[in-house]
Amino acid sequence: MDPQAIVRIHDSFASQTMMQTLGAEVIHIGSGEVRISAPILPGTRQQQGFGHAGLTFSIGDSAAGYAALSVLPLEQDVLTAEIKINLLAPARGDRLVATGRVIKPGRRLIVVSAEVHAEADGASTLIALLQGTMVPVPT
Amino acid sequence: MDPQAIVRIHDSFASQTMMQTLGAEVIHIGSGEVRISAPILPGTRQQQGFGHAGLTFSIGDSAAGYAALSVLPLEQDVLTAEIKINLLAPARGDRLVATGRVIKPGRRLIVVSAEVHAEADGASTLIALLQGTMVPVPT
Amino acid sequence: MDPQAIVRIHDSFASQTMMQTLGAEVIHIGSGEVRISAPILPGTRQQQGFGHAGLTFSIGDSAAGYAALSVLPLEQDVLTAEIKINLLAPARGDRLVATGRVIKPGRRLIVVSAEVHAEADGASTLIALLQGTMVPVPT
Amino acid sequence: MDPQAIVRIHDSFASQTMMQTLGAEVIHIGSGEVRISAPILPGTRQQQGFGHAGLTFSIGDSAAGYAALSVLPLEQDVLTAEIKINLLAPARGDRLVATGRVIKPGRRLIVVSAEVHAEADGASTLIALLQGTMVPVPT
Repeated sequence: MDPQAIVRIHDSFASQTMMQTLGAEVIHIGSGEVRISAPILPGTRQQQGFGHAGLTFSIGDSAAGYAALSVLPLEQDVLTAEIKINLLAPARGDRLVATGRVIKPGRRLIVVSAEVHAEADGASTLIALLQGTMVPVPT
Repeated sequence: MDPQAIVRIHDSFASQTMMQTLGAEVIHIGSGEVRISAPILPGTRQQQGFGHAGLTFSIGDSAAGYAALSVLPLEQDVLTAEIKINLLAPARGDRLVATGRVIKPGRRLIVVSAEVHAEADGASTLIALLQGTMVPVPT
Repeated sequence: MDPQAIVRIHDSFASQTMMQTLGAEVIHIGSGEVRISAPILPGTRQQQGFGHAGLTFSIGDSAAGYAALSVLPLEQDVLTAEIKINLLAPARGDRLVATGRVIKPGRRLIVVSAEVHAEADGASTLIALLQGTMVPVPT
Repeated sequence: MDPQAIVRIHDSFASQTMMQTLGAEVIHIGSGEVRISAPILPGTRQQQGFGHAGLTFSIGDSAAGYAALSVLPLEQDVLTAEIKINLLAPARGDRLVATGRVIKPGRRLIVVSAEVHAEADGASTLIALLQGTMVPVPT
C-alpha cells in the first residue's frame, strides 16, 4: 500500500474525537481491509455491564469506512450512506476488534462489511456483523 | 403509562454508562415512543467536526429500544437483534434528538424505527432514519 | 406532476416483465409517492400458502424505486443500491398494496421507504416495511 | 446430514409456487448451506432487460431461509423476520445462483447471509449480498 494512504487513514482517525473517547486504535491497515480495536471501558457499557451496541457499531462502521478509504485516491474522503448491524452475542470481555472489508469498490458507491469480535481470556467471539454502503466525496 | 414503567426506563438508562459518556438524556417517554437527546460534544465528533455516526446510532438505537421496552411487561428487558441506519445529512449543530417508535409489537420480536434530528440555531434537520428489531428477554 | 413524468413511469413499469408475471399494477403516482398493487396469485405463494416474501419485496422495491423516479429529471433512471425489509405479518388475503415514498431526495442518492399492506375481506394489514437507497443513473 | 432434513427442504421448496414461477431449483443442501439457482426468464426482468431485483431477492432469501432450516429440528419451520440486500451489479446473464449460509444459529433467532452470482458465458459475477434474520416457528 501507498505509505501516504496509510498516513492519511491514521490522520483521519486521529481527528475523530469519538474514537479517542472510546479508546479506539487502528491496529491494521491493508488494501481494502482495516482493523480497529477498543477496550470495553467503564464508560462505554449498556445496562447489563456489557459493551454498548453503540461502541460495537462505532468501531465496526469506522473499520468499514477506512477499508473503503484505503482503496480510494488521496483526494477523496468517504461517508457512510447506510449500514446495518446484526448483533449476535453480548459484547462480553476486555476489548472489541472490528475488521472492515471492501466487498465491491465503485466510483459512486463502495459496498463494505465488518465483523466485530469480543476478546475475553484469550478467546475471541464473533458478536456483530455489519453490511453497508460508503460514498466517496471530495476532501 | 404505568409510572413503574417510566421509572424502570429511567433506571435502565441511568445504568448505561455509554449514555452518560455521550451526555445523553431521556426527554420523553410515552407508550411506544421514547425521545433521547444528546449534545454534540467536543469528544463525540468525526473527522470533519460533525457529530459521529456512532453518536447518532447510539441514541437512535437506545430510543428505539426504550420505545420497545415501554410496551413490555415489567419482568422483561429488551435487546437489539439488528438495526439499520440511513444517514441523510451531516450531524451539524448543537444537539441531536432521537425519537424511537414501536411499529409492530410482538411476543417474540418488536419491530421499531427511529428518526434522529440535528438542532442548530433553532432549526431541526432530519439526519438519520433507523429500522430494526428488538427481542424481549427475561430480566 | 409533469404528465411526461407520469407517462415514463407507466412506460418503465410496462417494460418490467417481472411486474406482469406477478400481476402487478401501478395504482397511484404522485410526486415522491407511488403505489403498486398485486394479487396473491396461485403462482406467487410460499410454503404455507401465503404470499411469498419475494412478491412483497418486489412490489415494495418497485414502489420505492418509482417514488424516487417521480422526483428525478426525465433524462435520469434509477437503480436500487440497497434495501432492507422487515416482515411484520404473513401476506394473507387477496391482494397486496405497496406505497413507496421519498424520504430524502439527493443528487447522488435518494433515501426511500415503502409500506406493504395485505387486503382481505375489506381489511388492510401492514405486513412489511422497507427502507433503502436508490441511485440516479443516466437513461 | 439427516436424509429426512434434506427431504423436507425439497418438500417445502416444492410447495413454494413462487419458486416454480421463477423456474428456481435447489442445487445443493448442506448443513447450514443451501444453494438455489434460477434462469433469468423472459418473464422475470426489469426495465433494462436484466434480471429483476425481486428475482435476486427471492432466491437469496429462500437460500438463506433453507440454510437456517437445515440446522433446525424437523418439527420446526422458519420465517424471514428481516433481510437486507445490497445490489452490486446488474443481473446480467443466463442464470442466477444464490448461496445461503447460517452465520449464527440460535434457539430464538438465526442470523443468515446469502450471496447471489450471475452466470454468463461461463463467468460468474457476484451481484448481491444479503444479511438477515430467520425465526424458528413450530410447523
